[in-house]
Amino acid sequence: MLIAIGRKLRRKPIRTHAKGATTAIKRARIRGWSVERCNLERAGLKAVPDLFLSQAKRTRTRPASSNRSVTKEKNVTLNRQWRLKHRPEGLIGPEHFEYIESEMDEIAEGDVRVRNLCLSFDPTQRGWVNDMESYMPPVGIGEVMRAGTVGQVVASKHADFQEGDLVQGLGGWQDYFVAPAGAGLSKLPQGVTPEQALGVFGTTGLTAYFGLLDLSEPKAGDTVLVSGAAGATGSVVGQIAKIKGARVVGIAGGPEKCAWLTDALGFDAAIDYKNESVAEGVAKHCPERINIFFDNVGGEILETGLAHLSMNARVILCGGISGYNETEPQAGPKNLMNLVITRSRMEGFIIVDYLHRVGEFLADMVPWYAQGLIQHKEDVQEGFENIPATLQRLFSGQNTGKQLLKLADPS
Amino acid sequence: MLIAIGRKLRRKPIRTHAKGATTAIKRARIRGWSVERCNLERAGLKAVPDLFLSQAKRTRTRPASSNRSVTKEKNVTLNRQWRLKHRPEGLIGPEHFEYIESEMDEIAEGDVRVRNLCLSFDPTQRGWVNDMESYMPPVGIGEVMRAGTVGQVVASKHADFQEGDLVQGLGGWQDYFVAPAGAGLSKLPQGVTPEQALGVFGTTGLTAYFGLLDLSEPKAGDTVLVSGAAGATGSVVGQIAKIKGARVVGIAGGPEKCAWLTDALGFDAAIDYKNESVAEGVAKHCPERINIFFDNVGGEILETGLAHLSMNARVILCGGISGYNETEPQAGPKNLMNLVITRSRMEGFIIVDYLHRVGEFLADMVPWYAQGLIQHKEDVQEGFENIPATLQRLFSGQNTGKQLLKLADPS
Repeated sequence: MLIAIGRKLRRKPIRTHAKGATTAIKRARIRGWSVERCNLERAGLKAVPDLFLSQAKRTRTRPASSNRSVTKEKNVTLNRQWRLKHRPEGLIGPEHFEYIESEMDEIAEGDVRVRNLCLSFDPTQRGWVNDMESYMPPVGIGEVMRAGTVGQVVASKHADFQEGDLVQGLGGWQDYFVAPAGAGLSKLPQGVTPEQALGVFGTTGLTAYFGLLDLSEPKAGDTVLVSGAAGATGSVVGQIAKIKGARVVGIAGGPEKCAWLTDALGFDAAIDYKNESVAEGVAKHCPERINIFFDNVGGEILETGLAHLSMNARVILCGGISGYNETEPQAGPKNLMNLVITRSRMEGFIIVDYLHRVGEFLADMVPWYAQGLIQHKEDVQEGFENIPATLQRLFSGQNTGKQLLKLADPS
Repeated sequence: MLIAIGRKLRRKPIRTHAKGATTAIKRARIRGWSVERCNLERAGLKAVPDLFLSQAKRTRTRPASSNRSVTKEKNVTLNRQWRLKHRPEGLIGPEHFEYIESEMDEIAEGDVRVRNLCLSFDPTQRGWVNDMESYMPPVGIGEVMRAGTVGQVVASKHADFQEGDLVQGLGGWQDYFVAPAGAGLSKLPQGVTPEQALGVFGTTGLTAYFGLLDLSEPKAGDTVLVSGAAGATGSVVGQIAKIKGARVVGIAGGPEKCAWLTDALGFDAAIDYKNESVAEGVAKHCPERINIFFDNVGGEILETGLAHLSMNARVILCGGISGYNETEPQAGPKNLMNLVITRSRMEGFIIVDYLHRVGEFLADMVPWYAQGLIQHKEDVQEGFENIPATLQRLFSGQNTGKQLLKLADPS
């Protein structure tokens, strides 16, 4: 089902970068957060090549071509949806969702109807279907599954949105969604691919950037260990750490992922947790022990990392994907006292707290991406019927890079 | 066996405070660390009442009376010792130590012989007998058990030490120890009781002060949870948090300890883990959840605290006494992901890293103690034969406040 890796849907890569980044900021509105709109100059983009900046500036005016072809509202009557049927107790899968086709009403004054083009899959979605309050309320039984999406406006009764606009939002697992009063929608700047908007310049890139750089200070000579290293976030974390001069060791599943980390992304070493002992790998590849451990996995991987901390190490808890589908909560690491012995810090974060600092992110990520210092891979599935199964790919480790599913190209 | 709680062996309490504090700094030399000698003025003691400061200044000259009565070297031939016989796999107890009487040689040029008067008991001693490198090397089989002590010089071939001097060092579980070239010895300023030197102005006070204030910033309105709250460190932690205006909830074992926390020390609430549900107690007494959790216990207590963290909470790992005597490493908390959801930080520390900052400690602790804002309780056992059993008191929760054992009064 893998139809494209790193495929670019648009032709102008430079334009793409600058605009994809600005999209990420506006995405915050989807969840009702008050987020300052990105200002590239204020964000310190003076360091970016003039060409790049000039491209970025152009994104402020809406492209004249965006109305050229639109699925007409009048033709749309049925909406395919995947709704949460019951809450999973273990591994989440298609059986927890119900396929429904529902009639669509006319939109009200101020509303915007969007056709989803591309869906984002993120480990945090597993938490959204648990019946507990977290940083967002749980998805209710019978509700459309929540998901970040990029789509195209097909009907608008809102002055800020025109048919044909590419927008980002929490559109969910459905063909169409309505944004009441346009709430939570943000337009993609021209030239940004949906993949990039949902990935390297979206929450994926933001998570890697602020998780690593705000919770630690990687520097030349440091050893940085990254788990889930071939995932969307982990792969960017490792590359940022390399930019900062650190020695970077990744943990990933399978020889292909490991080869990608070392050969394409410049990781100093990769440990294949499916085929070798992680403890031995860490001991071998981190002879000076670990200064920074960016953990996406939890469980035994976390415990192994804790066993090899250097003095004053920083453990960044981004997620714990190994435990998300367990029926019982996993026991924590037995060696937490290593935090005491090594005077180390373990800290969690959620990227929503950093959305007001997107400018800092762009000031670095835009030129890094333009210079090829950051590569980003997308794993793009397709087919509406495959949506629930695609979420499962995250938990079986099938994806390399950002997991997406494409429903349609922009019209 | 409890012979004194908070008993003062000297008569002049104000002098006591200032001098006990300076002792703590010098104690660092015992372990061979390079530690700056405390300078009360530089440390910011201008805020201390003039009377207090003038008393403190006087401590710099050695009192003329300190030679008045000394156990003569020529009479000393036998040295009682408790040596490590074999390493405990579970609860440490008398069976792991061997009583030995050894002949003593004459001391060499530059050496100092000290008679131990008072022994300090600390949970960290349990770690010292494990066969693994930690922040200090393990005590070897057949070696005298390591312990912090206060003693009196009985023979000196070192210009800086005279017979009769009260000194602090890692003298171990024995009547006498020799400090080669005086290494690791620091004199107690006049008026300091051995109990205070080993407790509130020693590593106990330092641990509470820097653990709480360097790893978090308690302020008015915060809720601070302290486990092991009736212990030497925990009781001081809670009082410092109260000084900072926080709401303080302590977890301790038994109604007497809990009553001491609330009635004498001013804790807002205390949870008796032996007689009530800690989870229910935390939920009840921390309705706004926990901003700062100072944990001395680990295990289930740590997990319960993590379940009630507020946003951006700070978890200070001081120790994990609940696990020190387990034959197998305890599983860690199942809810570490709460650190992510609440964007919280868990951090370990060891007080040896703060010895160069004793001045800051004194600048606060000396006036706090003088004003009665900090109370300190000592649990003083006696009898050389009871030394190994006294260590066990820490792990059965028998002690309230600082666990000590007195061998003799100063002569």
